[in-house]
Amino acid sequence: MQIQSYMREKAKLVHQALDDYTAGLEGIPSVLKDAMRYSLLAGGKRFRPVLVLATVEALGGNTQQALPFACAIEMIHTYSLIHDDLPAMDDDDVRRGMPTNHKVYGEAHAILAGDALLTEAFGIMARAAGETGVAPEVALALINEASVAAGAKGMVGGQVDDLLGEGRTVTLAELESIHHRKTGDLIAFSVRAGAMVAGADEVALAALTRYAYRLGLAFQIQDDILDVIGDAVLIGKPVGSDEANQKSTYPALLGLEESKKRLNEITEQAKNAIIGHDGINPERLLQIADYLLARDR
Amino acid sequence: MQIQSYMREKAKLVHQALDDYTAGLEGIPSVLKDAMRYSLLAGGKRFRPVLVLATVEALGGNTQQALPFACAIEMIHTYSLIHDDLPAMDDDDVRRGMPTNHKVYGEAHAILAGDALLTEAFGIMARAAGETGVAPEVALALINEASVAAGAKGMVGGQVDDLLGEGRTVTLAELESIHHRKTGDLIAFSVRAGAMVAGADEVALAALTRYAYRLGLAFQIQDDILDVIGDAVLIGKPVGSDEANQKSTYPALLGLEESKKRLNEITEQAKNAIIGHDGINPERLLQIADYLLARDR
Repeated sequence: MQIQSYMREKAKLVHQALDDYTAGLEGIPSVLKDAMRYSLLAGGKRFRPVLVLATVEALGGNTQQALPFACAIEMIHTYSLIHDDLPAMDDDDVRRGMPTNHKVYGEAHAILAGDALLTEAFGIMARAAGETGVAPEVALALINEASVAAGAKGMVGGQVDDLLGEGRTVTLAELESIHHRKTGDLIAFSVRAGAMVAGADEVALAALTRYAYRLGLAFQIQDDILDVIGDAVLIGKPVGSDEANQKSTYPALLGLEESKKRLNEITEQAKNAIIGHDGINPERLLQIADYLLARDR
Repeated sequence: MQIQSYMREKAKLVHQALDDYTAGLEGIPSVLKDAMRYSLLAGGKRFRPVLVLATVEALGGNTQQALPFACAIEMIHTYSLIHDDLPAMDDDDVRRGMPTNHKVYGEAHAILAGDALLTEAFGIMARAAGETGVAPEVALALINEASVAAGAKGMVGGQVDDLLGEGRTVTLAELESIHHRKTGDLIAFSVRAGAMVAGADEVALAALTRYAYRLGLAFQIQDDILDVIGDAVLIGKPVGSDEANQKSTYPALLGLEESKKRLNEITEQAKNAIIGHDGINPERLLQIADYLLARDR
């Protein structure tokens, strides 16, 4: 199967699970359910949950055991997008080709829909042990890692520094530190979740973690490049918004050509991290890295 | 020991643990740490974590094992206050006698400080098994219950309906449904966390859960009453704000005298739920119920 088809199939699996789960939430205000589902089911690449599933397969693990973690990660990612888009933060009106959550449901409901998605994510992970047979110790370790990756040391801290950096030129080291926390930690957690559910040993886990951080950085550089040269229709949001928001980006700091060169190097580093390891069948993960390099949205 | 001293002592224990934990957070932006600590360490009654500790003691359990859950609950409670106070929600300027979080740190940082506190809370609970010897299955069950109590079915859903009810008169049944979710579920979770850490059986757990929901409702009725007849200096926020915000309250729906009568009845129901059970030493929990009835802040 081609990598595009593979990713589409996995994304569909995750989408269906998220749809089923949120449709089944009973006893909650309908506007809250609508607001949660609006952003959660808006589509998107499902890059993080697909990584969870591809990693568990690369290690010969059980996809059904990994699915709750894949869904939880997408819920955490979606909550972060809803909050980042708020007027008090990035003040974005369009996301994935649709009005942002607060534009449709108002700020209060957007904040609360984000809060609810984050909170549900931890419940889904906590129930995974009982429902799918993941070892309780593994589920607890993953809940802890999710908290660190998404919390003050990880994603939230990265967003704070990202906001603080607006309007001034940050150094390349600062920019990479922001990306490491704002997107890298959750991408690394996605790969680690798949690996830990599959029972990866420490050596494989370290290799896959390095792959994930390099992949996350490549993903971010490509995002920055697409904001300069991409097609707004494909991306689903206006291009040039980074420059308009005075965001520091790779093209702004290094220029477009140097950014592309760096994207290629880092993608190679990601791939090299997982080649030649016993117990890792790297094919799909290598294809995902190449796919990201070539993506136009 | 008098109940006031007992509650002060337990509140101090929790405060110290929260102070130590957040002071030890390394590698996070200083403004984020400051914003988190500003609200978390602002004082308050520490009612929920004190309930956790009093319940674990009522069952002869281990306070140290319950402490991480007590801290997590206070972090969840604090995050909810920060978000509820935002301009898009209740738009409050003063809380516990101090400017609200967004008044000091701005809306973006207030949203993110709330997000971070919620996220950290789940990490603290996940690590409790490894660090204090709580059984992994118990930790997972509590993380799941926390997610339900704080999420779309519980606290967040209650806040959505609370906002939807502003400016119109809700029925008593609607009001109690809002309180049940907005404050009751987290108070019930506090008692259940103490009970489950102490290994309570199903009968004791059911009795304590009923106690907690009645206590939570009494707490809310007293809150409403204090907003009418209380002393703004003691409460730490302006009185009369419910009426100004057109919030439905017990005094508004039932009148002040009938509200006081109902407060007394519900407090008695709370106490009766836990009297005469094998394995529950109810003394402190009964005193806490009486203390809440008589409180002036």
